[in-house]
Amino acid sequence: MSDKVAVIVAGSWGTALCQVLADNGHKVMVWTRSQEQADEINTMHTNSKYLPGSTLHPGIVATTNIEEAMKDAQLCLVVAPSSAMRQVAKQMKPFVSDAMTVIHATKGFEIETLERMSQVLHAELQCREDQIAVLSGPSHAEEVVMKRPTTVVVASTSEETADKAQVVFMNDAYFRVYTNRDVVGVELAGALKNIIALGAGLSDGLGYGDNAKAALVTRGLAEIARLGVEMGADVLTFAGLAGVGDLVVTSTSKHSRNWRAGYMIGQGKALAEVLENMGMVVEGIRTTKAACQLAKQYQVQMPIADVLYHVLFEGMAPKTGVELLMGRVRKNEQEDVAQTKWI
Amino acid sequence: MSDKVAVIVAGSWGTALCQVLADNGHKVMVWTRSQEQADEINTMHTNSKYLPGSTLHPGIVATTNIEEAMKDAQLCLVVAPSSAMRQVAKQMKPFVSDAMTVIHATKGFEIETLERMSQVLHAELQCREDQIAVLSGPSHAEEVVMKRPTTVVVASTSEETADKAQVVFMNDAYFRVYTNRDVVGVELAGALKNIIALGAGLSDGLGYGDNAKAALVTRGLAEIARLGVEMGADVLTFAGLAGVGDLVVTSTSKHSRNWRAGYMIGQGKALAEVLENMGMVVEGIRTTKAACQLAKQYQVQMPIADVLYHVLFEGMAPKTGVELLMGRVRKNEQEDVAQTKWI
Repeated sequence: MSDKVAVIVAGSWGTALCQVLADNGHKVMVWTRSQEQADEINTMHTNSKYLPGSTLHPGIVATTNIEEAMKDAQLCLVVAPSSAMRQVAKQMKPFVSDAMTVIHATKGFEIETLERMSQVLHAELQCREDQIAVLSGPSHAEEVVMKRPTTVVVASTSEETADKAQVVFMNDAYFRVYTNRDVVGVELAGALKNIIALGAGLSDGLGYGDNAKAALVTRGLAEIARLGVEMGADVLTFAGLAGVGDLVVTSTSKHSRNWRAGYMIGQGKALAEVLENMGMVVEGIRTTKAACQLAKQYQVQMPIADVLYHVLFEGMAPKTGVELLMGRVRKNEQEDVAQTKWI
Repeated sequence: MSDKVAVIVAGSWGTALCQVLADNGHKVMVWTRSQEQADEINTMHTNSKYLPGSTLHPGIVATTNIEEAMKDAQLCLVVAPSSAMRQVAKQMKPFVSDAMTVIHATKGFEIETLERMSQVLHAELQCREDQIAVLSGPSHAEEVVMKRPTTVVVASTSEETADKAQVVFMNDAYFRVYTNRDVVGVELAGALKNIIALGAGLSDGLGYGDNAKAALVTRGLAEIARLGVEMGADVLTFAGLAGVGDLVVTSTSKHSRNWRAGYMIGQGKALAEVLENMGMVVEGIRTTKAACQLAKQYQVQMPIADVLYHVLFEGMAPKTGVELLMGRVRKNEQEDVAQTKWI
């Protein structure tokens, strides 16, 4: 296959996926608002702001004209920050045909509406639900662009759409794609795991060590699965790549922005300073807000998200927060885990 | 409580748990075969071979006389290597009273019989099953001895025994103990996760990166849970501290012997050389053998254990092994995970 694929916007993950698509022989056109960035991609074949040190496939073409990017594309990949997704979808709308598949790879909620990204896309693009898919899993952009072996999952309510996405993205060399039908679970696991990654960073920043972090990750997984199941997700998805897999990689790697943000806060930096320092979106921070609201709405206990909310937005000292979590009284492990409805 | 607790042998984990018990106000007497090691613990309050750099609680007393160690103890903790457990149990036998609780914290099988450690203890001590418990979870000895927050699980078929163990080991400062009734699950999760940690080290040693390791850990967890359920474990246990929790800490930490052994093999070192280099038991290596036999016996697919077996014992190149695992064809994630009977 060598059809055209449009990629909407050239952040680090979007650009890394451009590279996969170009390696797979597709004609890739990526849209960016910045003429400077487009010129850099087209002439230098680099994206130094988002993937410093990497050389991009020379076949990747960047444009600041969204119509040009999307025209005649059989598939459009959207990797906008969650806060920009609705606005970006509005701009895409005129160029989405009935035959186009739209895949997003954004891990977060729209904070104002608490909607998942596929819900935002579906509403704004006014396309069929079966045209939409989500790509998620343990996948640092920095490693993908270096062609390190990576495994992701693509979910769609339509098996045909998921299969199509699998064919377009998968290659034998380094990028393995599984299909899944549980769109809700894949989106929720991908978004909510960022909270736990923040918490793991916080614990590391405070110098608590691997034992403490492992306890936090275990109970974090149970907590996000608990909310996910209430919201209609399949619990199996949380035991898979978008859940356990992504949680492992995000909670233990210095590549992870969420872990890094938590780490800096644990070391005593203020939220505003951390955000400035990162220079990129830290989805876990706004996801913490969304999760606390969803936990209230669905009446699910999420102690880790609660504590993080207090630390991030209400001035609780990180040390107090982690101590609160470690000291939570629950005597029997089976009772705790069973609440997650793993069974 | 300030009753006497016996600890059978002074390896790194046994010694770290001595420290917890002494911090909790118990009279701790640890048995070791080495007079030199006993003298060092009694006079220098260090155990430089197994916990270099740590100072031990001065209340910990070491002896080379097992009768002296066990006499009048209300509780006996055994942390012998799995290969030595039966022999050690034979030596303990004369000194195990009806009132004594025996807790082990060894993660492995007896390779000749494929028995779990509590089965070996039960057979050799000829005590009641409800006198026996297992302690497991994400807990590097090096961190416990530094009083870093740590969470473990204690399982016994008897709730009373588990509760007793919880009271003896738990403290508010840094050591949190959950109870669980699933002895089979806690023992299997603790033993089998060492295989996945070896695999994760192998992947890291080959330089494959975090994305590949996350995929391996996710599928590894599904694989060991699959076997565990067939052997009578509760699948919930694999989603808890002894499963996910221990897997996260063992697969991502340089403290882990299993990870380190895998890493060295991934870097091209021979098994014999690695074992010599470690100077300590690497349970994951013999557990790989046991798991492959159990997988055959219970007719469960364990592709990661299989590949490791070939790499460790049959000369397969590590790179070939990991490529085999990455290239395994399985299209649909839900089918793969569902085989684990998470539901």
